[in-house]
Amino acid sequence: MVLVKPQMGENIGAAARAMWNFGLDRMRIVAPRDGWPNSRAVAMASGAGRLLDEAMVTETSAEATADLNYIFATTARPRDMVKPVMTPEHAMRLAARKIAAGERVGVLFGAERAGLENEDVVRANAIITVPVNPAFASLNLGQCVLLTAYEWRRQVTEAEGEVLELGRTRMAETGEVERFVAALTERLEATGFFWPEHKRPSMEANLRNIFARAPLTDTDLRTFYGVVRALAERSGPRES
Amino acid sequence: MVLVKPQMGENIGAAARAMWNFGLDRMRIVAPRDGWPNSRAVAMASGAGRLLDEAMVTETSAEATADLNYIFATTARPRDMVKPVMTPEHAMRLAARKIAAGERVGVLFGAERAGLENEDVVRANAIITVPVNPAFASLNLGQCVLLTAYEWRRQVTEAEGEVLELGRTRMAETGEVERFVAALTERLEATGFFWPEHKRPSMEANLRNIFARAPLTDTDLRTFYGVVRALAERSGPRES
Repeated sequence: MVLVKPQMGENIGAAARAMWNFGLDRMRIVAPRDGWPNSRAVAMASGAGRLLDEAMVTETSAEATADLNYIFATTARPRDMVKPVMTPEHAMRLAARKIAAGERVGVLFGAERAGLENEDVVRANAIITVPVNPAFASLNLGQCVLLTAYEWRRQVTEAEGEVLELGRTRMAETGEVERFVAALTERLEATGFFWPEHKRPSMEANLRNIFARAPLTDTDLRTFYGVVRALAERSGPRES
Repeated sequence: MVLVKPQMGENIGAAARAMWNFGLDRMRIVAPRDGWPNSRAVAMASGAGRLLDEAMVTETSAEATADLNYIFATTARPRDMVKPVMTPEHAMRLAARKIAAGERVGVLFGAERAGLENEDVVRANAIITVPVNPAFASLNLGQCVLLTAYEWRRQVTEAEGEVLELGRTRMAETGEVERFVAALTERLEATGFFWPEHKRPSMEANLRNIFARAPLTDTDLRTFYGVVRALAERSGPRES
């Protein structure tokens, strides 16, 4: 990540945090307005301060990018240049492929207000534009770094889309669920729940479906056994 | 997007901006610490101030979520509950499907420091956890809203992964490129470039490959014609 002529130290610090949130730690900074090191950047970066200590700081973006094989420029507005324009997702997928092939890839971010100068965009091989609401596009430097770093991590790690957090329990086995439904049915039987008789099959099927549909743990089943027992015991002297 | 007990007005404003950047405009706020309306939130929201004007503000999160069919809770740390845990991507894909099917879906975000209370997480149908660097997970409220809103927009719009920005020009036709290479070859012929003679076929193939590989516009070709002419005219009296 290459910050070109960033102005506020706070934003440099925020960019460092955004990068490190997603495991990126190689920052380059071109001609920071307020000099270097910058105490406000350090204060803002807190846990990501190491990125600032180790950042490469150069006078020009040519120096900061000289050893890179491929450069992305982030820009919101069209530049009237012939240049591939990519979503962060597409760009970071390409970056991951290139880096896996041994290339060095950089992403240029412009100054807070003006963004990148045309000269820096010309230098880039491709443009990254975040697909924002056309009626309101106000991403700041830190947000732009955040989204790019997020997409980077998405492309290089395989986060499970969905996992069921189980805490200290385990999923119930089908047999356990069916035993519970049988016990429930038996209790209900005693209360005259299955009435009229000709509706019994569909009512039973209904009950079994409800419990088959829910992802239940063994703890859930124990809870349900307790619930049924408690209800049945309050429902009349028959069960007490 | 439901902000539960947000503290700083600035963060409420930042959340509004993050939402509107990605086209989301229905915000709910539960028990904001500093009351409502909040002038700091308004100042920070700037172009997204309408979201604050139209926000539903409630005392409890139960009220804020009563009419929703499905609730996500965003949380960084495991809660020791049996609950599906999803990436923002997976969660927003599910949300898009549910909303398309007529359901109302909400995402709960907790207070700046403590995050959501367990009671709110219990209420949720699923948990969203952003897959951050395990060594450094410091997303703030605005960033968490930003990433979720970004994923929402990614799921409901079909942004082209890559487009070639053409400015005022068009891609060259193959025939135009080949005519240019032929003209170049002819010029080079006159300079004795193709030497030794037995290497000519591979040298010619090489040249054609270079120009076939590059995505060239008609303007690029005109530029190249000019370059070749200029070089040839300076190279000696033969061409002048």
